[in-house]
Amino acid sequence: MTKKLLAEFIGTFWLVLGGCGSAVLAAGVADVGIGWLGVSLAFGLTVMTMAFTVGHISGGHFNPAVTLGLVIGGRHDAKELVPYWVAQVVGAVAAAVVLYVIAMGQADATGVGGFASNGYGAASPQGYSMTAGLLTEIVMTAVFLIIILGATSSGAPAGFAPIAIGLGLTLIHLISIPVTNTSVNPARSTGVALFADGPAMAQLWLFWVAPLIGAAVGAIIWKALSTTGD
Amino acid sequence: MTKKLLAEFIGTFWLVLGGCGSAVLAAGVADVGIGWLGVSLAFGLTVMTMAFTVGHISGGHFNPAVTLGLVIGGRHDAKELVPYWVAQVVGAVAAAVVLYVIAMGQADATGVGGFASNGYGAASPQGYSMTAGLLTEIVMTAVFLIIILGATSSGAPAGFAPIAIGLGLTLIHLISIPVTNTSVNPARSTGVALFADGPAMAQLWLFWVAPLIGAAVGAIIWKALSTTGD
Amino acid sequence: MTKKLLAEFIGTFWLVLGGCGSAVLAAGVADVGIGWLGVSLAFGLTVMTMAFTVGHISGGHFNPAVTLGLVIGGRHDAKELVPYWVAQVVGAVAAAVVLYVIAMGQADATGVGGFASNGYGAASPQGYSMTAGLLTEIVMTAVFLIIILGATSSGAPAGFAPIAIGLGLTLIHLISIPVTNTSVNPARSTGVALFADGPAMAQLWLFWVAPLIGAAVGAIIWKALSTTGD
Amino acid sequence: MTKKLLAEFIGTFWLVLGGCGSAVLAAGVADVGIGWLGVSLAFGLTVMTMAFTVGHISGGHFNPAVTLGLVIGGRHDAKELVPYWVAQVVGAVAAAVVLYVIAMGQADATGVGGFASNGYGAASPQGYSMTAGLLTEIVMTAVFLIIILGATSSGAPAGFAPIAIGLGLTLIHLISIPVTNTSVNPARSTGVALFADGPAMAQLWLFWVAPLIGAAVGAIIWKALSTTGD
Repeated sequence: MTKKLLAEFIGTFWLVLGGCGSAVLAAGVADVGIGWLGVSLAFGLTVMTMAFTVGHISGGHFNPAVTLGLVIGGRHDAKELVPYWVAQVVGAVAAAVVLYVIAMGQADATGVGGFASNGYGAASPQGYSMTAGLLTEIVMTAVFLIIILGATSSGAPAGFAPIAIGLGLTLIHLISIPVTNTSVNPARSTGVALFADGPAMAQLWLFWVAPLIGAAVGAIIWKALSTTGD
Repeated sequence: MTKKLLAEFIGTFWLVLGGCGSAVLAAGVADVGIGWLGVSLAFGLTVMTMAFTVGHISGGHFNPAVTLGLVIGGRHDAKELVPYWVAQVVGAVAAAVVLYVIAMGQADATGVGGFASNGYGAASPQGYSMTAGLLTEIVMTAVFLIIILGATSSGAPAGFAPIAIGLGLTLIHLISIPVTNTSVNPARSTGVALFADGPAMAQLWLFWVAPLIGAAVGAIIWKALSTTGD
Repeated sequence: MTKKLLAEFIGTFWLVLGGCGSAVLAAGVADVGIGWLGVSLAFGLTVMTMAFTVGHISGGHFNPAVTLGLVIGGRHDAKELVPYWVAQVVGAVAAAVVLYVIAMGQADATGVGGFASNGYGAASPQGYSMTAGLLTEIVMTAVFLIIILGATSSGAPAGFAPIAIGLGLTLIHLISIPVTNTSVNPARSTGVALFADGPAMAQLWLFWVAPLIGAAVGAIIWKALSTTGD
Repeated sequence: MTKKLLAEFIGTFWLVLGGCGSAVLAAGVADVGIGWLGVSLAFGLTVMTMAFTVGHISGGHFNPAVTLGLVIGGRHDAKELVPYWVAQVVGAVAAAVVLYVIAMGQADATGVGGFASNGYGAASPQGYSMTAGLLTEIVMTAVFLIIILGATSSGAPAGFAPIAIGLGLTLIHLISIPVTNTSVNPARSTGVALFADGPAMAQLWLFWVAPLIGAAVGAIIWKALSTTGD
């Protein structure tokens, strides 16, 4: 159990440091910046790399919504839900601390600004409403769980799940960064909200509620889809 | 059969929400937008992720032209052609509805514009003629079917087909977005045409005719190529 | 033998249509164009997709330099060298014809310009000398052959070679498009040179000589490297 | 042993020529340049391609910090540490020589400028402090080693390690190019520092010290994580 929690801590640490780090440090630099395409790739690769690395230890969730969906889908022990959530949130906060120190080490840094936090309304990257944000986060997380459950099912080709799941998260970012800056992961949202300027803490509820609802919906749809229940 | 149709519904839903969604929401944003490269990646990843997820349930077509080509190629039961087409088109329309609601939730949205619809002539992204559009869609769909039939044949390495097919669709978009906004998929074209401003409905015939012709051509070429007929 | 040659024809057709097509049609469009990164990805994906599709039929060379290197490396029958070269060049020319028709179908097309041809000196994308071009093409092709021979050797993981080789070609383009517009493939250079404005035909000799020298060098280095000779 | 060292020479040669070469030649070109996203992809693909190609010969380190981490992690013979380091540094320098000749072959080249060297303070691409650089290089190298040790452990899916490790290096660049231009590899830093204008040689110590510390930290964390010690 300790090793599982350490694996979830490290994986979620990497997800936030890599995904939010690329957004904070490299996305908006003029001419050579990586843009939202680079940030989307970065988020996906954090999950792909860590799923290959520690997936066989903890299952490789790195996301409270994923753990919930796997419990509902019958793939993970409900007793581990709360410890996993704690390890994930602590990992996300630890990454935010490291990223904060790096970001403030820039010569002309006066603050971290939005710090890659999630938001809606005036805090949405392109001004999408709370309703659009809720709908987006629910649908994206639901499909994410369907991909996770399907790509790790016994019918899918063995070994490829980290690619399907990681690049699935890249795809989700390619669609939804403009709407909410993309969460689908309450731990990721929490880690950076603690340090962000602006309304990130006040809006954090949505990035717990919507991903958790979406994960439950996705797990239920997968159960209807699956021919064998596995 | 119900589970197959649900799988095709979900897969085509994801193809349109992810591919057209990334185009509508994220492609053209200044400085950090994902551009056609990001949209190309998004379309490919919808197919890659869902082929890993439900490919073992329905075959993972998500495209009426693909289903036709697989029937002609002797890989799919002709009796399922019409039900598959219905599930695919319904999934595409459902995705267009969700995308419409999200897109209209932006603070300054006054309409959805082209809504990632396909077109030729004045409706082509870069002003290509109807003839160029027809040729492009036929050739692209033909090669797409050759890739699908080859990468899933018994001679190809097992398990990798979703990568070959998904990234093949990415490649097709990298080439042909300027010409027709890239269809090769009548369901995708139909879903967004229903909501788009402009001539998308009037031009929709081409994005059924050309992909279906191309799929037939591709299946016939594969049969000539294949040494074993499988 | 006929099926092998048809496979090489189709694969090289796709390499030129996809790689050069993305460059001609989509690279330089303002704001949303795919740039050299998209073109690099497109070239690599043509080889990755076709290697998965027809690699088990013909070996999946699609490139006269690759066929030469595999003959020198003891992996391919020398008697097939000339027929393969003919099929590859004919496939490349056929793709250039299709691309020419599409490109001229744009409303304001007055010619195809450089048509993604290769060049040096004033015809180099960024003005690199003939010496820089020669060195670049020799080194890039040499490493390409080392990758091909290594990734398909018995010591490498089975099934992954199309990924290693395809993305290896992407990488080669990421480095060397500025220098020569990247050839490493005489058939690709020949196909588009026939239609290009400018000195492409007069400079075509370099894009046969350098890749063939590089392929021979790569095959010889691999033989020194390989512990088992396979 | 000779073949192992030749493999490490070639792999590190390719890492520097491909990664630093794409940065020097193609990153900053107006409109179509590949930017930091393309450079990140290039660095990762050098490792992915060479790990598939010669990984079964030498282990595919191409990086003194990786060799150290694998020795500490019990995966590599300590007696080979120094010979590997020598082969890696010589390969990196050889690549820098080739890149220098190509870069100086441009019509208007007057020097190679920063030559993709690593730096901090005024030499950091975005002006990050020495402390931020140290922290970044240590953390990035530590996670890189965790990925390498995990993805090649017996619990991970076989054959996929070059993808996880190569794209892990891409991810590391997506995050940290703005901070130090990303090293995590003392050989890569040394090769280009010899030719770069500016303070690269004076700052080279950091790009040996921090990656080596990070590699040791990563190896120790992996040993704590691993349930079986392998």
